[in-house]
Amino acid sequence: MSVYTPLSTAELEHFLSRFALGSLQSFRGITAGIENSNFFVSTGAGEYVLTIFEHHTADEVQDFVRLARHLGQQGLRVPAPVADRQGEWLHQLKHKPAILCPRLPGEHISNPQPEHCAAIGSALAQLHIAAADLSPMRPDNRDYHWWLSTGPQLVSALNEQERGLLEDELAYQTAHRADWLALPQGWIHGDLFHDNALFSDDGQVAILDLYNASAGALLYDLAVVANDWCCDVNGVWKDGCVEALLSGYQTVRPLTAAEQAGWNLVLRGAALRFWLSRLLTRRLQQQQAGELALQKDPAEFMQKLLRRRAQ
Amino acid sequence: MSVYTPLSTAELEHFLSRFALGSLQSFRGITAGIENSNFFVSTGAGEYVLTIFEHHTADEVQDFVRLARHLGQQGLRVPAPVADRQGEWLHQLKHKPAILCPRLPGEHISNPQPEHCAAIGSALAQLHIAAADLSPMRPDNRDYHWWLSTGPQLVSALNEQERGLLEDELAYQTAHRADWLALPQGWIHGDLFHDNALFSDDGQVAILDLYNASAGALLYDLAVVANDWCCDVNGVWKDGCVEALLSGYQTVRPLTAAEQAGWNLVLRGAALRFWLSRLLTRRLQQQQAGELALQKDPAEFMQKLLRRRAQ
Repeated sequence: MSVYTPLSTAELEHFLSRFALGSLQSFRGITAGIENSNFFVSTGAGEYVLTIFEHHTADEVQDFVRLARHLGQQGLRVPAPVADRQGEWLHQLKHKPAILCPRLPGEHISNPQPEHCAAIGSALAQLHIAAADLSPMRPDNRDYHWWLSTGPQLVSALNEQERGLLEDELAYQTAHRADWLALPQGWIHGDLFHDNALFSDDGQVAILDLYNASAGALLYDLAVVANDWCCDVNGVWKDGCVEALLSGYQTVRPLTAAEQAGWNLVLRGAALRFWLSRLLTRRLQQQQAGELALQKDPAEFMQKLLRRRAQ
Repeated sequence: MSVYTPLSTAELEHFLSRFALGSLQSFRGITAGIENSNFFVSTGAGEYVLTIFEHHTADEVQDFVRLARHLGQQGLRVPAPVADRQGEWLHQLKHKPAILCPRLPGEHISNPQPEHCAAIGSALAQLHIAAADLSPMRPDNRDYHWWLSTGPQLVSALNEQERGLLEDELAYQTAHRADWLALPQGWIHGDLFHDNALFSDDGQVAILDLYNASAGALLYDLAVVANDWCCDVNGVWKDGCVEALLSGYQTVRPLTAAEQAGWNLVLRGAALRFWLSRLLTRRLQQQQAGELALQKDPAEFMQKLLRRRAQ
């Protein structure tokens, strides 16, 4: 998503005056992400990313930021916010929660190869271990219980094949619920698609966008990665990618026997979760677009302005 | 907007158990409003409206709710939240801020007549007076400064006539800024379109949706009403409506000389403000819809699910 919240140079300069980071040199909006407004910001002290949260409460942001700082303190490459002169790291900007983070080095990759999969596997295992001692954990609001409550609401928008698939998969996941519950739990990223990683020339990987982090099965986090990084859009595995991912992960944290046995079950659950959330998003957006077209024509107020000017 | 946040009977029953309002009898989503999810809720104690805030922080909601309670305590018909057994009126539901208010009596009217305009004028003046002693006031984030910063960002989406109109009106408003600043200020509703009012059989009017309330010129609030209640979609005044609105308002609070002199200026500003915000909303929605179509095809994860099931 392009920038939601517009920001003037004066507003940004005022915001930056709280920090000991020198004066503003330049900034520009980042046309990515659909939850937040993001800006690249250059100051005398270096390169930063400013994030304004559009859809999260300050409480939720505090959870994310606490996790990011915890991981950053242990040396992981994640966007950990910088503190201002008063030691505050969570701010208000345009009446919304906002944070300022150092800009992490590296580039996005468009088509992950086995070496990228190995690197992200290893980085994810490090994240799982580094986050383990941070409590309390945020509950996952897109977990099994959400699948069960959301699925039936979407049925009317599905064709017969889709409906059959959804109902059958929900039944399968329910039947194997005990297997899920036997999996090791902890903080998970929850949304580690390849556009949430940066690779730098030194081979290091940075993990972005911790805003879906929550409690969950660690193996589920790995399955989200596999379903995005290791296959094409039809789900066909790319040569060597899953193997590299699992191998990279296990150099840091070996999988348990329950995890090894549950891999396909969890891959299915991870695909189901994003199918459901995308269906829901599409339905809401269609409703919004439809209502907007019907009800909120800007031209109405342009006409009214023209009339008032003619009075 | 239809319901954003899905809610199960069990979730709602759990939520209601905090209140001394008896047990849940029925509920349904309300397909109106684009900022919040709203539900009609019937309990043993009566009829309520549950609001889940989708885009506001708990801090912002606290501001709105404080105002609603303040107005309600002075006898105005506004949605003032009820407290639970612990005396709390602001809650979390599905990780979002939520309030429960008594359902106000009355019906929306589709085409306001002079008697409705007189009644809303009088009710708005009462609101202005009743709110005056509540501080601090929330700043208006859609005020003159927002017009100035937002207008130029929208220019690329406008044709030549629209661009000329926008630039000329911004210059006019800037030239007359001193006249605005001479107007009496206070809490304003900020969005009192006719779908934010309910008329009951006894002729009483309830004012809904205080979520844009902020500090501002009182006359601007009246101009927002005039531009919506008192004219057609082309801005042509309907017979007798503005006169009834102003007369109803002044039975409670007479306009000052500066207000009488500034009426057309403020009518123009109020039309400009909603033209700008609707243009901005349309642009953001188009971007969202476009990105969704390009990037977030649900079918991708349906295919992946099918593959994982076949493994």
